Amino acid sequence: MKYSIATVGSHSALQILKGAKDEGFTTIAICIKKHSFIYRHFGVADEIIEIPSYKEFHMIEDDLIKRNAILIPHASLVAYVDLETIENMKVLYYGNRRILRWESDREKQRQWLNRAGLFLPKVYRDPSEIDGLVIVKFYGAKGGQGYFLAKNEEDFWRKIGSAKDYVIQEYVVGIPVYIHYFYSVIRDELELMGFDRRYESNVDGIGRIPADLQEGLQITYTIVGNFPLMLRESLLPEVFRMGQRVVEASREICSPGIFGPFCLETVVTPDLKFYVFEISARIVAGTNVFIDSSPYALIRHGKPMSTGRRIALEIREAIEQERLEEILG
Amino acid sequence: MKYSIATVGSHSALQILKGAKDEGFTTIAICIKKHSFIYRHFGVADEIIEIPSYKEFHMIEDDLIKRNAILIPHASLVAYVDLETIENMKVLYYGNRRILRWESDREKQRQWLNRAGLFLPKVYRDPSEIDGLVIVKFYGAKGGQGYFLAKNEEDFWRKIGSAKDYVIQEYVVGIPVYIHYFYSVIRDELELMGFDRRYESNVDGIGRIPADLQEGLQITYTIVGNFPLMLRESLLPEVFRMGQRVVEASREICSPGIFGPFCLETVVTPDLKFYVFEISARIVAGTNVFIDSSPYALIRHGKPMSTGRRIALEIREAIEQERLEEILG
Amino acid sequence: MKYSIATVGSHSALQILKGAKDEGFTTIAICIKKHSFIYRHFGVADEIIEIPSYKEFHMIEDDLIKRNAILIPHASLVAYVDLETIENMKVLYYGNRRILRWESDREKQRQWLNRAGLFLPKVYRDPSEIDGLVIVKFYGAKGGQGYFLAKNEEDFWRKIGSAKDYVIQEYVVGIPVYIHYFYSVIRDELELMGFDRRYESNVDGIGRIPADLQEGLQITYTIVGNFPLMLRESLLPEVFRMGQRVVEASREICSPGIFGPFCLETVVTPDLKFYVFEISARIVAGTNVFIDSSPYALIRHGKPMSTGRRIALEIREAIEQERLEEILG
Repeated sequence: MKYSIATVGSHSALQILKGAKDEGFTTIAICIKKHSFIYRHFGVADEIIEIPSYKEFHMIEDDLIKRNAILIPHASLVAYVDLETIENMKVLYYGNRRILRWESDREKQRQWLNRAGLFLPKVYRDPSEIDGLVIVKFYGAKGGQGYFLAKNEEDFWRKIGSAKDYVIQEYVVGIPVYIHYFYSVIRDELELMGFDRRYESNVDGIGRIPADLQEGLQITYTIVGNFPLMLRESLLPEVFRMGQRVVEASREICSPGIFGPFCLETVVTPDLKFYVFEISARIVAGTNVFIDSSPYALIRHGKPMSTGRRIALEIREAIEQERLEEILG
Repeated sequence: MKYSIATVGSHSALQILKGAKDEGFTTIAICIKKHSFIYRHFGVADEIIEIPSYKEFHMIEDDLIKRNAILIPHASLVAYVDLETIENMKVLYYGNRRILRWESDREKQRQWLNRAGLFLPKVYRDPSEIDGLVIVKFYGAKGGQGYFLAKNEEDFWRKIGSAKDYVIQEYVVGIPVYIHYFYSVIRDELELMGFDRRYESNVDGIGRIPADLQEGLQITYTIVGNFPLMLRESLLPEVFRMGQRVVEASREICSPGIFGPFCLETVVTPDLKFYVFEISARIVAGTNVFIDSSPYALIRHGKPMSTGRRIALEIREAIEQERLEEILG
Repeated sequence: MKYSIATVGSHSALQILKGAKDEGFTTIAICIKKHSFIYRHFGVADEIIEIPSYKEFHMIEDDLIKRNAILIPHASLVAYVDLETIENMKVLYYGNRRILRWESDREKQRQWLNRAGLFLPKVYRDPSEIDGLVIVKFYGAKGGQGYFLAKNEEDFWRKIGSAKDYVIQEYVVGIPVYIHYFYSVIRDELELMGFDRRYESNVDGIGRIPADLQEGLQITYTIVGNFPLMLRESLLPEVFRMGQRVVEASREICSPGIFGPFCLETVVTPDLKFYVFEISARIVAGTNVFIDSSPYALIRHGKPMSTGRRIALEIREAIEQERLEEILG
C-alpha cells in the first residue's frame, strides 16, 4: 500500500499501530526519545521517528508527508500540540480536525451535547445557586487533580481558595460509564466498540478507607487506567441512539460532522438515565481495554477488532474505494 | 439442521444467537420494535420477529412452532412474560421450566439453597430481632431500587415508610461475587463458566464520595453492567461443590432438576465463606463478560465458548444423540 | 520432549499446565486429594499425583525426578512448603530459588526495592512517630486478615491489642495496581504481561456501605480474586524502567538475580508515582486474568500468551538452545 499510518507513541498507539499492521499498512511511531524503546519492544512500528519533545512535533511534518503518512490523532497529540498547529498541519489527518474546537471549549461542547438531546449535569452560574452536591472543575486542568466536591455554598467558599476559572456542576450520583463508538463514513454506520470504567487516583481508593478515617482527605481524579465493562443489553438501543444523535448534531454544527472513534463519558443514575459530562471527539484510552478485540466488534466483524484496527480498516476501505478524501479532515 | 434457536432480543441475546450460529443453527430474535435494529446491526439473527410489546409474546408462539424453534429463556423473558404463560407454552423450551417457580418464590428458593447446604444470610422474622446491619428487600422489586440498609430497629422504622411486603435480611459484610455454572445433561457434567461482579447504580458510586459528603444519600441497587472477575484458584473446588449440591438438591425438589446455565449470587466474607443471597435458574447477564469466551470454558473445550454458545453446543449434541427431549422441559 | 512440567494444583496451575501443553510438554499436577478433581475436569494434566497434604510434598520428589519434571513454583508451594525444603529439593526447579529469602523477609525485601530506587511507603520504627494514616501489618499473616488502619498514635494503641510482631507502614492514599513482568533469560529481555487489581474481602465491599452505617466495621484484606486492568500507555516507560531496575538490583544481591515472572504490588498516587509495597518473586494469581492471553504479550508474541505459557515457552527455548541450566536455580 502506498500510504502509511502514523501516530504519536503514547495513549493508544499500541492498538493503533498494531491494528494498522493487521490491516496491511506500514506504520510510524513518533516518539519522544525516552518513550521510543516501548514501541521498539512491541514491534508495532516499522519506523520510529524521535523528537526531542512534543512541542517539536511540527519539525517532522515534512518527514510524514514524504512517507505519505496518515496521522491518527489521540489525546496525547491534542494535549501537547496546540490546536492551531493541528489545524494548520499539511500532513494527511484522519478525522474532522475542526471538531476539536467543539471538544476543547466547555461551552461549545455543551451546546453540541444539548443539541443532541442528551441529559447533561446542571451548571450553576453562581455559588449561591448551589442546592445539592456539586463538583467544581477548572478550565484546562490536566487529569482532574484540582477538582473538588462541595455540598453547599459555604463548603464551596471554604474550598475554592483563590481559584477563578471554574465551573460548578451538579454532581450526579450514579456510576461512571464510558461509551466507545465508531462512526464509519465508508459504511455509513455507527458501531459500538464497548464500555469501560476509568480507574482514578485517589477517588477510586477512598472507598477502601473506613469513613471514620477519611478526615482531611483531598480527593483527586487522576486517570491511571481502565477496567473493561459490559452493559446491560437492554440499554444498547439507548446507547446507539445517543451516539447517533451526537453524530447528527455534529453535522449541523461542524460539517461534515464527527466520524471515526469518539467517546461519551457518562454517569448512569439509578433510573438508568445517562448523564453525559463530556465527549471526546477521537479515540480515548479506555479503548485500550479492547487492545485485542472489542466484544461487540468481534460479533459485528466476525474477527478480532480493536478500535485501532477499526480505524485502519476504515482507511483501507476508503483507499480501495478511492474515497480517502472523505475521511481526511 | 432442522431446528432453529430463538430468544428474546435483550439481556444475553447477542451471545445466545451468536453462539447458536457458531454451532450451525439458524437463529430467530423476537424483538419489540424499537430494539430490533440492534440485532439487525450485529447480524446475529437470521430472522427477526417483531412484537408490539413483551405482553404479546404468546402471539408469535405458532410462528416459533412452525419454524421448529427451540426457545432459550433468560431474565427478560421471565420478567416480562408471566410464569403461567411460560409454563403453558407449546414451543420447544430449553431448560426445566418448572424450576422457575422455585426461583421466583423467595421462600422456596431458600428451601432449595438450604437443602443444598449453602450458607445463607440470616432472615429476621420481626424488626425487633435486628441485631446488626440488615438489608431490607421488597417482593417483586425490579432491579433493587427500593432496597435499603438499616443498622438497628429504630433505623428500620425510620426508613420503612408505609411499605408492607418486605424481607429483612442480614447484610453480610464482604464482597459480591457472581458464579456462572453450566450443567450439561448430555455430558452429565457440571462446568464452570466464570465469575463477574455486578456494577450497580448508585451503590457502586457512593464509595467515590467522601464520607462527610454522603449525608442524605439514598442507596440503590439498579444493575447497569458487569465486570469480568477471576477467583482465587484455590476456591474452585468449593465453587464446584456448591454448584454440584445445587444441582442435586434441585433433583429432589423439582425433578429432573436444574440443567443448563445457572448462577449463584454470593457475598464472600473475609474467612472465604460464600454466602448465597440468590440463585438464578437460567443464563444471567453477567455471562455477557464472556461474550467471546469464558476463560474456564476455553480450557475445558479447547476453543472460544460463551455461555450462549455452550447452550447451543448442548442442543446440537442432544440432537446428534437423539436425546433432545432430555433437555426440553 | 524428554522433560515434563509439574506444578502444585492450586493458585495459577490452570494457566501453567495449559500453557505447558500449548508448548508441547507433558504435564503433572501435584494435588491434595480433595482438589484433584478440578485438574482432572479441565484436562490440563497428563498425570495427577495426589498427596495427603502439602506437608507431604517431599514424598513425591523422587517421582518428579524420575519423570524428568521441571517444577514451576507459585505462592501455594511457597506458602505450604517451608523455604529450607524448597532450597534443598533435588527436583529441577524453574527460577532462582534463593531469591525467595529476599522475598519472604520484609527487611531484605525493603533493601532490594530500595536498591532498585523505587518509592516505598515510609516505615515507622515507633508508634509515637505516626504522623498520618498508617496501616499496621503482622509478620506471617496469611491474606491480610489481621491488618488494620490507624490515624494516630492513640488510635494505634486502641487497636493493637496484645500483638507484638508488627510493622507500621505509611498508608499511601491512591489506588492499588499490580504489575506483572516476565524476565526472559533466553531472550535477555524484560516483558510486560499486564496489570490487575486485587479484589479483597471485606475492604472492597465497605465502599458500598454508606458512611453513617460503617460504625464498628473491621476491615480486612483477604484476597478473593482479581480484575483485569489496563494502564495509561504513557506510564509504560516508567513501568518498564521499574521492572528493569528490580532485575538489576536482584543481580547484585542474589546472583544471577530474578528471572521468569514477578510482580510489583503498588499504590499509584494522584501525581502518578508508583509506591511499591511488596514484590512477589514468582508468578502471582493476578496473572489469572490473562488465563488465555495477556494483551501486551499478544502484541509482543503475535499469538495468545498467558504468563503460564510464557514460562513454558522460555523452558522450551532453553532446551532447544541447550541452555536449560541457566533457568534452573
